[in-house]
Amino acid sequence: MKSYREMTKEELKSELSELKAQYRKFQEMDLALDMSRGKPCREQLDLSMGMMDALNSGVDLSCEDGTDCRNYGVLTGIHEAKVLLADMMENNPDNIIIYGNSSLNVMYDTVSRAMTHGILGNTPWCKLDKVKFLCPVPGYDRHFAITEYFGIEMIPVAMTPAGPDMDVVEKLVAEDETIKGIWCVPKYSNPQGYSYSDETVRRFARLKPAAKDFRIFWDNAYGIHHLYDDDQDYLIEILAECKRAGNPDLVYKFASTSKITFPGSGIAALATSPNNLEDIMKQMKNQTIGHDKVNQLRHVRFFGDIHGMTEHMRKHADIIRPKFEAVEEIFDRELGGLEIGEWTKPKGGYFISFDALPGCAKEIVSRAKKAGVTMTGAGATWPYGKDPQDSNIRVAPTYPTLEDLKVAAELFTLCVKIVSAEKLLGE
Amino acid sequence: MKSYREMTKEELKSELSELKAQYRKFQEMDLALDMSRGKPCREQLDLSMGMMDALNSGVDLSCEDGTDCRNYGVLTGIHEAKVLLADMMENNPDNIIIYGNSSLNVMYDTVSRAMTHGILGNTPWCKLDKVKFLCPVPGYDRHFAITEYFGIEMIPVAMTPAGPDMDVVEKLVAEDETIKGIWCVPKYSNPQGYSYSDETVRRFARLKPAAKDFRIFWDNAYGIHHLYDDDQDYLIEILAECKRAGNPDLVYKFASTSKITFPGSGIAALATSPNNLEDIMKQMKNQTIGHDKVNQLRHVRFFGDIHGMTEHMRKHADIIRPKFEAVEEIFDRELGGLEIGEWTKPKGGYFISFDALPGCAKEIVSRAKKAGVTMTGAGATWPYGKDPQDSNIRVAPTYPTLEDLKVAAELFTLCVKIVSAEKLLGE
Repeated sequence: MKSYREMTKEELKSELSELKAQYRKFQEMDLALDMSRGKPCREQLDLSMGMMDALNSGVDLSCEDGTDCRNYGVLTGIHEAKVLLADMMENNPDNIIIYGNSSLNVMYDTVSRAMTHGILGNTPWCKLDKVKFLCPVPGYDRHFAITEYFGIEMIPVAMTPAGPDMDVVEKLVAEDETIKGIWCVPKYSNPQGYSYSDETVRRFARLKPAAKDFRIFWDNAYGIHHLYDDDQDYLIEILAECKRAGNPDLVYKFASTSKITFPGSGIAALATSPNNLEDIMKQMKNQTIGHDKVNQLRHVRFFGDIHGMTEHMRKHADIIRPKFEAVEEIFDRELGGLEIGEWTKPKGGYFISFDALPGCAKEIVSRAKKAGVTMTGAGATWPYGKDPQDSNIRVAPTYPTLEDLKVAAELFTLCVKIVSAEKLLGE
Repeated sequence: MKSYREMTKEELKSELSELKAQYRKFQEMDLALDMSRGKPCREQLDLSMGMMDALNSGVDLSCEDGTDCRNYGVLTGIHEAKVLLADMMENNPDNIIIYGNSSLNVMYDTVSRAMTHGILGNTPWCKLDKVKFLCPVPGYDRHFAITEYFGIEMIPVAMTPAGPDMDVVEKLVAEDETIKGIWCVPKYSNPQGYSYSDETVRRFARLKPAAKDFRIFWDNAYGIHHLYDDDQDYLIEILAECKRAGNPDLVYKFASTSKITFPGSGIAALATSPNNLEDIMKQMKNQTIGHDKVNQLRHVRFFGDIHGMTEHMRKHADIIRPKFEAVEEIFDRELGGLEIGEWTKPKGGYFISFDALPGCAKEIVSRAKKAGVTMTGAGATWPYGKDPQDSNIRVAPTYPTLEDLKVAAELFTLCVKIVSAEKLLGE
């Protein structure tokens, strides 16, 4: 296909006219499709229905150590759940707290605690004039929502296929002690699906922040969420690397089973250093008597061990891999060579990131919406919802059926072409 | 029995010598009994095992409105869970948010949010020089732990059998705008088992606080936790009364199913005014995508409706009523007429409150411990763990077996007698 950039004005006008005719046909289809959120589809949820049978009234709800999971207590989670999540997170069970159903909630609480009580004896952030976070962009809107809610100033840092631009990260954290944290999705990042390179992780572990209470918020949401059996990204384990580098307290690491079993009914976990754990426990003992141990036990009984979880994730991959491939096939076919957009081809995670011509993202999302296809709002991948280039769009292929997804992707590419053609024509 | 106060020194010495001989016999029994926490016993937990069968892999996990409970979403809880908890709490389902497994966590979050963001546009409490809470005493140690953790100054207010001394409450909140809240357990209070009188609730609803952001933290933990079918306490519903009194925003009301199904695996709820709900939602949407809907559905399917829950609570009562009565029988028999202690006889809830002679509580608890019976720490029922009279001890009869409980109660009364006799002898 000839690049739009190489077309004459007349060629482009003719193309645009043809595209608009196609668009009207889509409008006539009365579509109501959703590519906006990273939600598992029904078939993925069905994979975990066996978990509903893992416990029943005939089963002993006691832990291996004899604790009755039905009663109060066990603040940091039952041991066998720590072992399972430890294997999942590649950490020592002793370094893990098991929480409730939402790792986002754990992240929120972690920021909230730093606001009111500070980290390891440092000044509570609410007592400081200014607190800043680094935000690799594009990134996850719900991360940015937490820091915005607490009035924390967000500084965008460019993502590369190897992770955040570490030259910038190193420089900023070293010279500005008001920078207290950075949001990271280190593996199959949201939305690009990039995984941090070995060098990036090594440089993270060796950061020399001006602020003693600077922490890396390491949201390893997609640690075992591969699309392929034979072609997987590997990540250096950050806690171990920090310990080796002499910075044991630098990281809070988050994970959950939200996209493994049931979102909203899974279990979340935090892994960090003994010092940080002790610091967290001072708060946690006032916040709750304990999280849902029965649900922890349910997960353990369902999976058995990490091998069971790994096999389970292969089934997820079998369902969503064709969806990612379908979107990529349509993007390649419809947009390849046109020079009006670039997109990622991740090997895991939940998203494809699309970069349109500058100034086009909002209009593309709006056009898609008018024809019945909901995308993540343009700008959502940037702090404050403001993408300075108005270029990035997050594509979430997992939730719709394959059939619906193909229609949605076709329509999306059509919108990209229309808006880009108009842009190039100066309309 | 002759009152210790009327005994001569010689009589008391002789009595003490006999008591110590009995105490040594208890010590030889190598007891390990626990009357310290308000935990349901095994038989109570067994009552809810049917809940483990309410959902299984053959059951549709959709709500009445079609929402798939297995996926993300529904921030404030599924409708049918709101209806069930609304019936339990005597509130409108529209005024309710369903949370995770712990109402304590909801209270913590409510205070934490007020600290960082303030209430309904008022100054965040962390920006104020001084924030105070009123604490009816004796009261619940975990309430006091939250306010202490946030550096909130706690002012004790005396409890009466009709509730907190409202003359004091009214005066203090009217004249001191740094008083921002009061902790209340209005029904079968912790630890006395008192229920607030109609007049008390009416006066609460008509408070005229100097602080616009003053809130009543109404922890109705034992709203349906009666011991008797035919002799129950009734409480005027506080939200409705506040609305009638023109103070709709005055109250946050908390409840949970922790002592109905499984502690730690139940569902919690908050009921409050539309203004407060809107205020809370601004935070909550940043904190989580939603709580565990599958567990909400599990509770709804298990109970069916409030009648099912009411019948379920009768079964709890049948298990724990004999325990309360056994303790009261032993206290009456062993301590009646001695004038060395007073105790409550609640019609519901989880506790009996014991007031020893001033200066005796710590020593009684310590003596019981040495003979293998763990009580709630003396002082725990007061802010900062400091009971100025060193008099109040919380007795929790539910967790031990009836047999163990009787031994523990006997030993406890023995310790009361020994410590009191020593006190009266000036030893």
